Amino acid sequence: MFMLPAPADRILARYRIETALPVEQVVETIAGEQSSGTFLPVPGETDELKARARARIIEITPLESAAAPSLPGGRVPKSGAGPVSYRRVECTLSFPLANVGPNLPTLLATVCGNLYELAEHTGCKLLDLALPPAFSDRYPGPQFGVAGTRRLTGVTGRPILGTIVKPSVGLSPAQTAELVRSLGEAGIDFIKDDELMADPPHSPLAERVAAVMRVLRDLADRTGRQVMYAFNITDEVDAMYRHHDTVLAAGGTCVMASIHSVGLAGLAALRRHSALPIHGHRNGWGLYCRHPWLGVEFPAWQQLWRLAGVDHLHVNGLQNKFWEPDDSVVRSIEACRTPLFRPDDTALPVISSGQWGGQAPETYRRAGTTDLMYLAGGGIMAHPLGPAAGLRALQQAWQAAADGVSLEDAARSHPELRATLEAFGARSR
Amino acid sequence: MFMLPAPADRILARYRIETALPVEQVVETIAGEQSSGTFLPVPGETDELKARARARIIEITPLESAAAPSLPGGRVPKSGAGPVSYRRVECTLSFPLANVGPNLPTLLATVCGNLYELAEHTGCKLLDLALPPAFSDRYPGPQFGVAGTRRLTGVTGRPILGTIVKPSVGLSPAQTAELVRSLGEAGIDFIKDDELMADPPHSPLAERVAAVMRVLRDLADRTGRQVMYAFNITDEVDAMYRHHDTVLAAGGTCVMASIHSVGLAGLAALRRHSALPIHGHRNGWGLYCRHPWLGVEFPAWQQLWRLAGVDHLHVNGLQNKFWEPDDSVVRSIEACRTPLFRPDDTALPVISSGQWGGQAPETYRRAGTTDLMYLAGGGIMAHPLGPAAGLRALQQAWQAAADGVSLEDAARSHPELRATLEAFGARSR
Repeated sequence: MFMLPAPADRILARYRIETALPVEQVVETIAGEQSSGTFLPVPGETDELKARARARIIEITPLESAAAPSLPGGRVPKSGAGPVSYRRVECTLSFPLANVGPNLPTLLATVCGNLYELAEHTGCKLLDLALPPAFSDRYPGPQFGVAGTRRLTGVTGRPILGTIVKPSVGLSPAQTAELVRSLGEAGIDFIKDDELMADPPHSPLAERVAAVMRVLRDLADRTGRQVMYAFNITDEVDAMYRHHDTVLAAGGTCVMASIHSVGLAGLAALRRHSALPIHGHRNGWGLYCRHPWLGVEFPAWQQLWRLAGVDHLHVNGLQNKFWEPDDSVVRSIEACRTPLFRPDDTALPVISSGQWGGQAPETYRRAGTTDLMYLAGGGIMAHPLGPAAGLRALQQAWQAAADGVSLEDAARSHPELRATLEAFGARSR
Repeated sequence: MFMLPAPADRILARYRIETALPVEQVVETIAGEQSSGTFLPVPGETDELKARARARIIEITPLESAAAPSLPGGRVPKSGAGPVSYRRVECTLSFPLANVGPNLPTLLATVCGNLYELAEHTGCKLLDLALPPAFSDRYPGPQFGVAGTRRLTGVTGRPILGTIVKPSVGLSPAQTAELVRSLGEAGIDFIKDDELMADPPHSPLAERVAAVMRVLRDLADRTGRQVMYAFNITDEVDAMYRHHDTVLAAGGTCVMASIHSVGLAGLAALRRHSALPIHGHRNGWGLYCRHPWLGVEFPAWQQLWRLAGVDHLHVNGLQNKFWEPDDSVVRSIEACRTPLFRPDDTALPVISSGQWGGQAPETYRRAGTTDLMYLAGGGIMAHPLGPAAGLRALQQAWQAAADGVSLEDAARSHPELRATLEAFGARSR
């Protein structure tokens, strides 16, 4: 399904391109702009340099044409012979690794850089990447991944079930800890801060860590189970280090960062400092992918963040509250679970957004695995019998999914699941 | 033209939204999702918490409706009474500063986060921001800006004229230094690495710095003029520190970073470490802005990077080789030059992309200032009489623009400018 491994000295990038101009020429322009060329021939671009540094076209596959451009500002042919048609292709470019070296930030400038602005096209989307092993030599990849997260949570044979603190913002550290206590006592595996809140005046990170970890240590003493709490430490680099150390010192087992907010360099710095799993939140992702002819698709994008070091990566969820179709979510789950260079460099897919348990059977069927983190926010917190019952309903839904029992059948002997179906079931029918 | 200052305790964000659903309700959903709400009412969202933490709608201004959706995946009304119309509005939301604190990465999750993915709309673009002074208290802003860059280059009363090393990639440190020598001897003010190249095997940063700075120190000894060279140090955080120190130790006066590649946390870290101006390259920007109904516009975006600390910021150029219309480029120049909190927290706009001097009069007329950096790559390097003549032609074009003389008139007494017009003039007519 995904691209083959790249040769040791090349970087492969697959794109979808739309243009009103001769399409081979446009792909060649992109290859030139993103390697040794510019808009005019320059004296220094010798044949020897071109042979060494210029990107090459590997293949161009035609797709259906369109009558109107997907993006504004594209050039059209000068001679007006009939209506303009916008030709669409998939194509693969091959860049010399030596142009950039194994450097993720410069790689981004190459495969996701100025090419989006070229007037030669009216659509440009990066679909997939194949990177050579030199990137794996330089970048450590996930430190904990699936196995490490299972070890820290003690959860085996089923998804790690979790929630997001809601309301997203506004709770004090004491209120957050109180909520954590009731969820922890109900048996939750994982809780995370919302991405909207990291170290605000109304809930300073250090105070929140102290309050929450007091509850979780107490709970672990009583039950032997360590709930994993992902503290949102998204911030400047030095502040992230400090916050990470605060979490670690308090016995915490996870930190969270919004990947687009901290950037590739920020995330890689956190990874090199971290002794904890990094929960990667992809908020803002819609900006990169919602338009079919602009931006980047997740199978390409997630590679960069896994190399930089995320252990968990958000992938949206089936029948979500967002715009994204299920097929796209399934592809993202598969991408996170496909090894890049080593069997253990996968990221744990985090399923989230409008989840309440009703999606469990279909999620299990399509993902084909329980190596998932499955988060319900409102689905737990707004359960008619309260958050603890919301969690039990989620556990029951996943048990039913794993047993191949329909939710309706399982609900007969499980009142919490029954209440969930009655309250939220109508939403998805 | 831009938004008014925000109150001390609020963050204002203006958006363009498109939706098939009742528009006030959709704007309210966005306000809720990006503050204290979620897709279901939860027990903890009390009236007190809502009053304190929920984002408020300041205004909604209707725009013309559309017959088709701009983005896929949007919900449509359930009752099929006639064809669906997509209503468009501009609206301003007000977020409590206390939700996030003066934290740029969390601010990004709030104003540029999950809202792009909501199925309630079929178009969402962040247009502008107004931030409270707390951001200026925490973030240092540009360290050198316009005045500091003029001081270091010794250029007054005209734009700082520069070029990009071309071919972008593939030259050895010695070849780069040779090119720098000829441009320096011709009187160039500024040279930069291309964004595609930072510390690759074929031109390691340390070797390039040594070779280039040897030439520039020698030139400064002979002429008293210090050419500013922006070394591309885009990399992981620790590597950027190391590369910065290498440039500083060699007597260099500028470092360059690709802002989207290093991210807000990476750039802020570099700024706190740096003793040199930071040249901010915005490659990848097309991904954020090319579609009119997705992403973010530059007047909003540039504020984040200036606060984080860039001194120079790329803004494209008039009659550029990219897709962007001139009006948008002019708005970006104005945005960079509009103070946020202090008169000196502006960024020097860097005009680049397909520039060759022919755009000088119109650039001067529309920007209304010479506080600009004006870069020509191919326009200098591909000049028919060679790079040194290309630079002189650029100087002559700007002199003519400042004197109010047409380029055609000026070309009569300036053979380099005449050759430029003959070679490149046809491209823009």
